[in-house]
Amino acid sequence: MLNRVRSAVAHLVSSGGAPPPRPKSPDLPNAPSPQTAAPPEAPRSPPATAGSGSAAPAKTVEARASFSRPTFLQLSPGGLRRAVDHAGRAVQSPPDTGRRLPWSTGYAEVINAGKSRHNEDQACCEVVYVEGRRSVSGAPREPSQGQGLCFYYWGLFDGHAGGGAAEMAARLLHRHIREQLKDLVEILQDPSPPPLCLPSTPGAPGSSDSSHLVGPQSCWSSQKEVTHESLVVGAIENAFQFMDEQMARERRGHQVEGGCCALVVVYLLGKVYVANAGDSRAIIVRNGEIIPMSREFTPETERQRLQLLGFLKPELLGGEFTHLEFPRRIQPKELGQRMLYRDQNMTGWAYKKIELEDLRFPLVCGEGKKARVMATIGVTRGLGDHNLKVCSSTLPIKPFLSCFPEVRVYDLTQYEHCPDDVLVLGTDGLWDVTSDCEVAATVDRVLSAYEPNDPSRYKALAQALVLGARGTPRDRGWRLPNNKLGSGDDISVFVIPLGGPGSYS
Amino acid sequence: MLNRVRSAVAHLVSSGGAPPPRPKSPDLPNAPSPQTAAPPEAPRSPPATAGSGSAAPAKTVEARASFSRPTFLQLSPGGLRRAVDHAGRAVQSPPDTGRRLPWSTGYAEVINAGKSRHNEDQACCEVVYVEGRRSVSGAPREPSQGQGLCFYYWGLFDGHAGGGAAEMAARLLHRHIREQLKDLVEILQDPSPPPLCLPSTPGAPGSSDSSHLVGPQSCWSSQKEVTHESLVVGAIENAFQFMDEQMARERRGHQVEGGCCALVVVYLLGKVYVANAGDSRAIIVRNGEIIPMSREFTPETERQRLQLLGFLKPELLGGEFTHLEFPRRIQPKELGQRMLYRDQNMTGWAYKKIELEDLRFPLVCGEGKKARVMATIGVTRGLGDHNLKVCSSTLPIKPFLSCFPEVRVYDLTQYEHCPDDVLVLGTDGLWDVTSDCEVAATVDRVLSAYEPNDPSRYKALAQALVLGARGTPRDRGWRLPNNKLGSGDDISVFVIPLGGPGSYS
Repeated sequence: MLNRVRSAVAHLVSSGGAPPPRPKSPDLPNAPSPQTAAPPEAPRSPPATAGSGSAAPAKTVEARASFSRPTFLQLSPGGLRRAVDHAGRAVQSPPDTGRRLPWSTGYAEVINAGKSRHNEDQACCEVVYVEGRRSVSGAPREPSQGQGLCFYYWGLFDGHAGGGAAEMAARLLHRHIREQLKDLVEILQDPSPPPLCLPSTPGAPGSSDSSHLVGPQSCWSSQKEVTHESLVVGAIENAFQFMDEQMARERRGHQVEGGCCALVVVYLLGKVYVANAGDSRAIIVRNGEIIPMSREFTPETERQRLQLLGFLKPELLGGEFTHLEFPRRIQPKELGQRMLYRDQNMTGWAYKKIELEDLRFPLVCGEGKKARVMATIGVTRGLGDHNLKVCSSTLPIKPFLSCFPEVRVYDLTQYEHCPDDVLVLGTDGLWDVTSDCEVAATVDRVLSAYEPNDPSRYKALAQALVLGARGTPRDRGWRLPNNKLGSGDDISVFVIPLGGPGSYS
Repeated sequence: MLNRVRSAVAHLVSSGGAPPPRPKSPDLPNAPSPQTAAPPEAPRSPPATAGSGSAAPAKTVEARASFSRPTFLQLSPGGLRRAVDHAGRAVQSPPDTGRRLPWSTGYAEVINAGKSRHNEDQACCEVVYVEGRRSVSGAPREPSQGQGLCFYYWGLFDGHAGGGAAEMAARLLHRHIREQLKDLVEILQDPSPPPLCLPSTPGAPGSSDSSHLVGPQSCWSSQKEVTHESLVVGAIENAFQFMDEQMARERRGHQVEGGCCALVVVYLLGKVYVANAGDSRAIIVRNGEIIPMSREFTPETERQRLQLLGFLKPELLGGEFTHLEFPRRIQPKELGQRMLYRDQNMTGWAYKKIELEDLRFPLVCGEGKKARVMATIGVTRGLGDHNLKVCSSTLPIKPFLSCFPEVRVYDLTQYEHCPDDVLVLGTDGLWDVTSDCEVAATVDRVLSAYEPNDPSRYKALAQALVLGARGTPRDRGWRLPNNKLGSGDDISVFVIPLGGPGSYS
């Protein structure tokens, strides 16, 4: 993300300040050491275990964190050089000679125009097999039962202040999701409502009998109904948290620099789950209609959450910041005058008399792409950032950032999709210069130029979207056809066909 | 509101627990003592100062708090007896002989079927004149300048655990709004953007010159643009807070019992502001289309806000509650098993091992109309409730309740309204048994039976809505035509015509 972290005021320190890591559960996937990273390979078909989303021709941790590109790009050493050339900004897509991505997904990316040394976006596309950890009845599962689950997975990770967090998330987040789903394998395939309570020990008698679970109710007249869908949402939410905790634990050993936005799609049992933490965006274009599948989390959209936290926990402001918002910085000479402000409970503005502590820097300031938390970071959800501190201070910013995504669910079975219906995921490099409507117009223009059954049309569409956001070099910059500036940021796009040649039913 | 506060588990104590009252500003309106309350009268036309929204033929504070009905009903002693008769439940509306409510607004109400002794709903409809406190330039205003502002005001207040808070809010909230608007009289009438900073003392030189306000910006490239509209929103938000603080200060002297939901409408300078704190509801029905103008604030809709507060401030839970949500009460014998739960960051559900502190009562429990905070209250925003405690405990509930409304704005000038376009306000007694669509159908049915220029049609519509929600006595209860139970709650409805005979342009 371009300028998401103000390099002038932010710095990374390796010392503490973040909460102590909690003990690692033995069930959590390990971060593979660089030496054991899977070699580049095409995505596997089910049933297969999760492969690595991002591996690279690299021999050291640092090199891997800096240079890796998604394995499905199958970049040769020469291709990698072209991919990281800020001057040429060649658009990268998986080769036609390789195996296609699941569902004939289209993908394209381009590096930034020089704002950071490396492309800090990362991507992952996988088919993941989930083997149940144990049966609901408590009996150990027979491997031959074959009752596992498969999910399709796409992830975009937009890094900032270093590429380490994005690289790690691309490599591991889907494994955390798999881990969270392991307990649900039988439950999700059972049409009856999920049991509210499970036995602690496998083999405990009567544990699959839900009748005993409905005990005498002291306060509820009935128990709450919990859907299968909400279990998947909960699994994805917790997977984000476990991923973030793993980054906190391993930040020293594995050079997990910076943080990243995460936008992932999980397709499971007929439903598409879109989970977003950050300022990437997903939309469905269906029969020309735009269906937003995410919203952005920025200092502006999360102002009230941030202010409330600063109000309830003033120690997090370190005496350096005020939780109040002002429309501009207050000058010391204005002390005693009355200035417009917004408190955490307000959406409107009112005047207040300026007091001494109002001269502190506001927790949230600026507008649009320039909005910042603690004058430092322009995105309020994501993974990592455990070492991020306010400039010239030991004040940690992480307490204000949330690793939890918002998850939206789209039922693929409720509508008969045609080959032109797609789910488009893009990092902010795309959306900063392209509106939803412009994307929909490009979808229509590009797809209509290809036969409906031509699987390469989605890759062409992804490339067209990336090219359209990058522009062409002209007048000392990258410019769009309307002569406005193109995006100088890293740009990454997935185009997922919802009714295309993919066979997902 | 029916059963909003569980009388079995809640009680009111007069001792402290709430935050200490802050000193009263000399600018705040005083609560008139009962002796000085204005006599019943029809709403005044502008220019006029705010009249009392709710006064009554009562001689003591207690009687006033218990029996008062809106002055615009002009109830005779006999009428008042009929209005409070739980058996007959006669629908009340302003008499045809009186002066009409502004804009020919329709109003109707009915008392509950016996759930509480008195009708705990209150209503207010006023035209309020706002005289500027001082000019922006700092010069004292000449009374002859006549540059004041007028706003139209409608308010519904649904009390619980006593009628005192609703009665006080009906009498005073519009005065707090007027007070907040006093500083804005000149600013709102000046088409240029509001000044970000005002002088502290009237007459300070150069204070109306906005050019000096744009000082050197250390961090913002430009100042934030603040609209006139957002100033009105901020004024309404702060008026709710001041009203709540006044209730806290005067709760002992004035018998401000319980609390109330507040739904108010302010029409000012071409825009309709709908502010809601609680579970009343406002919708616009425009050319048959439904435009929601509020949302309800309940333990379910505000679950994550409540849980976050309990998580960040565990002392507010007093060791009696857990901030985690469970789908049903956990039995002690289930310790060690794994139960579905939701944390404050989650919208989905996941399993967790039950530990000792999970056996505490959940902060939020139940579903629908039975959802409760701390097993006590079913609404999470409103005014009052400063004395509300958890049963058999000194634990205050007020810290979890917010007095801040959500304000939605509707620009009346953006659409040419016809006489059938209305804004409908109702307490939950209406909405518990009537859907938005049913209300829209009643709007169509009733209004089409009257001439478009007949001002009595809006009163007839309000009566039809109240009757339709109350039903008729049959089979040992109040029943709707479909034989379902009607609402046994207090029901109050305003119908505000948006393009009717009212002359508000």
